[in-house]
Amino acid sequence: MESLKQRILKDGHILDGNILKVDSFINHQIDPLLAFDIGKEFYNRFQNTQIDKILTIETSGIAFALCAGYHFNVPVVFAKKHTGINMSSVVYQSTVYSYTKQYNYTISVSKQFISAGENLLIIDDFLANGQAVLGLVNIANQAKSKVSGVGIVIEKGFQPGRKNIRSLGIRVESLAIIESFKDNKIIFREALKK
Amino acid sequence: MESLKQRILKDGHILDGNILKVDSFINHQIDPLLAFDIGKEFYNRFQNTQIDKILTIETSGIAFALCAGYHFNVPVVFAKKHTGINMSSVVYQSTVYSYTKQYNYTISVSKQFISAGENLLIIDDFLANGQAVLGLVNIANQAKSKVSGVGIVIEKGFQPGRKNIRSLGIRVESLAIIESFKDNKIIFREALKK
Repeated sequence: MESLKQRILKDGHILDGNILKVDSFINHQIDPLLAFDIGKEFYNRFQNTQIDKILTIETSGIAFALCAGYHFNVPVVFAKKHTGINMSSVVYQSTVYSYTKQYNYTISVSKQFISAGENLLIIDDFLANGQAVLGLVNIANQAKSKVSGVGIVIEKGFQPGRKNIRSLGIRVESLAIIESFKDNKIIFREALKK
Repeated sequence: MESLKQRILKDGHILDGNILKVDSFINHQIDPLLAFDIGKEFYNRFQNTQIDKILTIETSGIAFALCAGYHFNVPVVFAKKHTGINMSSVVYQSTVYSYTKQYNYTISVSKQFISAGENLLIIDDFLANGQAVLGLVNIANQAKSKVSGVGIVIEKGFQPGRKNIRSLGIRVESLAIIESFKDNKIIFREALKK
């Protein structure tokens, strides 16, 4: 998605050689028109797939999941993050390891909001190791719903997230894939190599 | 906002006589088309006011703030919740007491995302005692920005949030105001009494 890549080049910052900071338009301050276009692009890429519901995870995924849900005209459910409350009678839960923060956290979704047989599109802002997405896939499996695809705003292509999700046979569409940070510059993966 | 009130009557549930559960379309599962209409209604109510930025607080406020920001075509900033990290050199912080959860938490906004002289519209999903909104007002004051208004999706009219905010001279617009829960039914405040 060219407008997203241009925005990353314009307003993204590389920290410590390996961390991309995009909090001026993705993570803390959000550009609503860009978010809307991102939702439209997810729609364009998955419009020939049956999607009954969008599933994401708080916090930064919500804006983009909402905009995708608007274009698909389907409900958006966001998993909640806890540090380990056991409510398994009423929620599906999964444990996610954060490599960034180096701890486990629990995500949960109320059982009433995902159902057996539903076709889910998982949306998240970032894909690195894929742990959060795999946690959502685990929850979808518990609910006997189907993950029809994963849509990512920014993928770190040099980390194993895509491989981990693809190994489950799930399609991944990322709107911007970063190949590397070379000499403190952002190098995107070329479309053909995607 | 009539469509919102009808949806609350249809899908809202009253718990323990005093808690309104709307997690099937507001707090956990979101209806994107309704959220978009809510954003439009905030625009309609504040369109004659100078609004440079939308300010909200994670998590449930984000969807509605984003939709308002889309219609105003201005950036959306969400305050982050922490349990007390001191980063005051780079963020504005405020302490918020949660009556529901009975503890204090810290909210923070990066100093680079609100500026002196900016006109802010604060958006949140619920207004009860108004502590979260007052925390955002406090942050706006630290930044020397101006709060031009507060937009709320659902207000509990029998709690003092509106009075607390109005006492600072700030305009409050709520799209649905609950007057009471009588005999386990939701009674909305009539428009004229608002």
